Amino acid sequence: MSQYDDRNISMMMDLYALTMANGYFVYGNEKTWAAFDVYYRKNPDDGGFAVFAGLEQIIEHIQGLHFSERDISYLRELRQFDDAFLEYLQNFRFSGDIYAFPEGTIMYPNEPILTVIAPMIDAQMVETVILNQINHQSLIATKTRRIVNSAQGRPVFDFGARRAHNVDAAVYGARAAYIGGAAGTSNIMAGKQFGIPLSGTMAHSWVMFHDSEYKAFRRYAEQYPDDAVLLVDTYDVMRSGVPNAIRVAKEILEPMGKRLKGVRLDSGDLAYLSNRARIALNDAGLEDCRIFVSNSLDECTIRALILQGSNIDGFGVGESLITSKSDPVLGAVYKLVAVQDKEVFVPRIKVSEAASKTTNPGLKKVYRIYCEKGQAIADLITVADEILNLAKDSRYVDPEKPWQNRSFTNCSAKELQEPVIKGGRRVYPKRSIEEIRHYVEQQISQETWKEVTRLERPHVHYLDLSPAYNEMKTRMLREASMADKFMPNALS
Amino acid sequence: MSQYDDRNISMMMDLYALTMANGYFVYGNEKTWAAFDVYYRKNPDDGGFAVFAGLEQIIEHIQGLHFSERDISYLRELRQFDDAFLEYLQNFRFSGDIYAFPEGTIMYPNEPILTVIAPMIDAQMVETVILNQINHQSLIATKTRRIVNSAQGRPVFDFGARRAHNVDAAVYGARAAYIGGAAGTSNIMAGKQFGIPLSGTMAHSWVMFHDSEYKAFRRYAEQYPDDAVLLVDTYDVMRSGVPNAIRVAKEILEPMGKRLKGVRLDSGDLAYLSNRARIALNDAGLEDCRIFVSNSLDECTIRALILQGSNIDGFGVGESLITSKSDPVLGAVYKLVAVQDKEVFVPRIKVSEAASKTTNPGLKKVYRIYCEKGQAIADLITVADEILNLAKDSRYVDPEKPWQNRSFTNCSAKELQEPVIKGGRRVYPKRSIEEIRHYVEQQISQETWKEVTRLERPHVHYLDLSPAYNEMKTRMLREASMADKFMPNALS
Repeated sequence: MSQYDDRNISMMMDLYALTMANGYFVYGNEKTWAAFDVYYRKNPDDGGFAVFAGLEQIIEHIQGLHFSERDISYLRELRQFDDAFLEYLQNFRFSGDIYAFPEGTIMYPNEPILTVIAPMIDAQMVETVILNQINHQSLIATKTRRIVNSAQGRPVFDFGARRAHNVDAAVYGARAAYIGGAAGTSNIMAGKQFGIPLSGTMAHSWVMFHDSEYKAFRRYAEQYPDDAVLLVDTYDVMRSGVPNAIRVAKEILEPMGKRLKGVRLDSGDLAYLSNRARIALNDAGLEDCRIFVSNSLDECTIRALILQGSNIDGFGVGESLITSKSDPVLGAVYKLVAVQDKEVFVPRIKVSEAASKTTNPGLKKVYRIYCEKGQAIADLITVADEILNLAKDSRYVDPEKPWQNRSFTNCSAKELQEPVIKGGRRVYPKRSIEEIRHYVEQQISQETWKEVTRLERPHVHYLDLSPAYNEMKTRMLREASMADKFMPNALS
Repeated sequence: MSQYDDRNISMMMDLYALTMANGYFVYGNEKTWAAFDVYYRKNPDDGGFAVFAGLEQIIEHIQGLHFSERDISYLRELRQFDDAFLEYLQNFRFSGDIYAFPEGTIMYPNEPILTVIAPMIDAQMVETVILNQINHQSLIATKTRRIVNSAQGRPVFDFGARRAHNVDAAVYGARAAYIGGAAGTSNIMAGKQFGIPLSGTMAHSWVMFHDSEYKAFRRYAEQYPDDAVLLVDTYDVMRSGVPNAIRVAKEILEPMGKRLKGVRLDSGDLAYLSNRARIALNDAGLEDCRIFVSNSLDECTIRALILQGSNIDGFGVGESLITSKSDPVLGAVYKLVAVQDKEVFVPRIKVSEAASKTTNPGLKKVYRIYCEKGQAIADLITVADEILNLAKDSRYVDPEKPWQNRSFTNCSAKELQEPVIKGGRRVYPKRSIEEIRHYVEQQISQETWKEVTRLERPHVHYLDLSPAYNEMKTRMLREASMADKFMPNALS
């Protein structure tokens, strides 16, 4: 069951997509195909990697993309579109091809994570949702992975629904967080929609509602004897919360043959209180009672809490995760790289004053290069029809440092993009959220250098250009800088 | 047409809401009423105010709140809930009362912007969505207002859909932005859903697709002669973009009797280029051609661009607005303030180590106090049944500085909360988005001190407590600090 079964989000696009589409239609370019690459320029939080997420929702969206009668009549009211174009929209279905990294792939800046090859009109219409889904879900998956890495094996739970940027941000944010390695979410809607494990304890209001903290704990434990995590900071953690939790464990749960699952700290100094609580719980024979903490946590605070020595078994993370608070924007862009001319796709390049904003032109392939030990050491862009032969000692070019070459003898390569949609039809197999999550975990633990996942000032994963690709790009840059086709030829 | 016509978001709640609700149900507390206040502690971006937004969606959600059979069977699978409770949920409808500031009200920290008075179960079930909507929409409305204030009358357009945190964040973000004073949005779905004016120009891909920039501009102008805003930075703004735009204005539009509406700059130094472009356009007799700019703008950059002297007529703002990038979290909270005991609501207080986190207990009223000139000079909390008499020289107490009293003779007061839902039924009139937007504008321009809307280190709007309220709160704090009801009485 997808979000799009229940609602039509086809109109989720920027106006210019439709005004340009109308223009292409009117001038008879609706059958001209073009290629657009999606890539981003900077990892969130100046980290060394990002996690690609949101692909499943992109596919669902594109499969469902259509304009209802209500949509068409709204567009007619705008008085910007030709009648023939609006008629064309009535039966519009996406007819192009999409290639992308498998969802969950560890990704790096400036490589095409997704490529749309489609009629110009179709390509324009999917831009907004593709960027919106990738920018949101990849951001949250990446942030979560940073937090999960910091927690060093302790579970991290998404508690962010109330601080998320509206309903979808909570639900798809929970999905992305799970892909990134979260152990579960508090959000029931996300649990139901995606089968994510749910997690929750109690609110301070539960404690405050009852005459005493003890009574509140007792009732909760009686109701949830297998699953009671008691919130111990409503009044005073060590003088009231923990002793009452211990009393409930002894007086209520033990006679039932049950153990107290955990306590949660939501304020105060979490390291100090977790250590004090641990001693008190152990002294009472509750060594198996876990200590969970929450309260504006992020990857830096979690690292610091662990590093100083604390007794924390799990983390509930809210706003920092669900909004990627310290860096809430992944700026993936959608750039034209080639236009069909008869049977061939002619590369296009946008030359910018900032070298980093110059696009990588043309149809291409992206490979991940692995060393003999199986670790990813670089990514490599080639011309689309180039035959890669790593055994041959070709020299590959770092586009950031064109004087610096590299060769990859004794390495293996894996092509990263897979066909996702062909001729409008899905060809990408549906992967379960567990599979995607496992794929992330496996790449992080086995393929990705610790130098790359380090929180601060990580190693920059190499992105190379094959000699043939580099030559093509360099030639186009040279031509563009000499070209006068865009120079003014009237007025000056 | 609301978001909830198309989909059921009733499950958008934290798990603990339902586990606690189940607990209240099992122990027979489902008829016990309680009161919860919603408030936040800090204005976004350390500003002096925030704009209350999201109320309409809260009402829609609560009106539609129900559990479908699919919901119930999912909950049953969780094996945490009593069968009798799940049966109760089948016919559940919110039956309580909600009071809130009218949508669009300028709001300040630590005052109850919304109050839920309802059976405990009902109150728990609406917590997540109330916080989610207020935290998102108020954040974006506030951020937009800061940007709009900076733009000093020049229009600001929301161009953020692609960087928003999923679909809702774009659509309801556009709504909030419009309420906050944006002139329009690029997002067609938001335009359709709320009647927000749409705005859009063209993408770089439109220019790159065509053989030449001139041809791209010409075709666009022919298609949209009344509404052409040409993107002039694909190749070179002053050597190519602006001359080609001028040529199209002269050769294509003027013969049609039309004028070129505008050009857009999306890179480079926007102040320098806008001034150069202005001169070139004026020299060509195009004084009425407007210059729009975009590219990672926020309130500070906009202020700086205007301050140094630039020729900019309007701003397209993306990620900084739609994610409130510099401060993406409004941390509104939902706190129990009173519990029904027979006929009365008994105040509850949560005492925290941090004085700022101590709650304001009990049922209360909030007033805005206006000086004779009509400007808001303070907000005031009273006990719910207190009769306010400003003419009487009572002395009101600043809770942050309890030694500092104030009196409000010759002032007028307006109660801020209005009934929104009574006994589960909507009593709040539906206000159009234009009305709400106008209300924000009117408060900012007529009632709010410039000292409060200043971007940095603004005046802190006063929040006072009436003598009676202050006395009640002080008494409860004293009792809480002496109380031993939550002290351990087993183990130590």
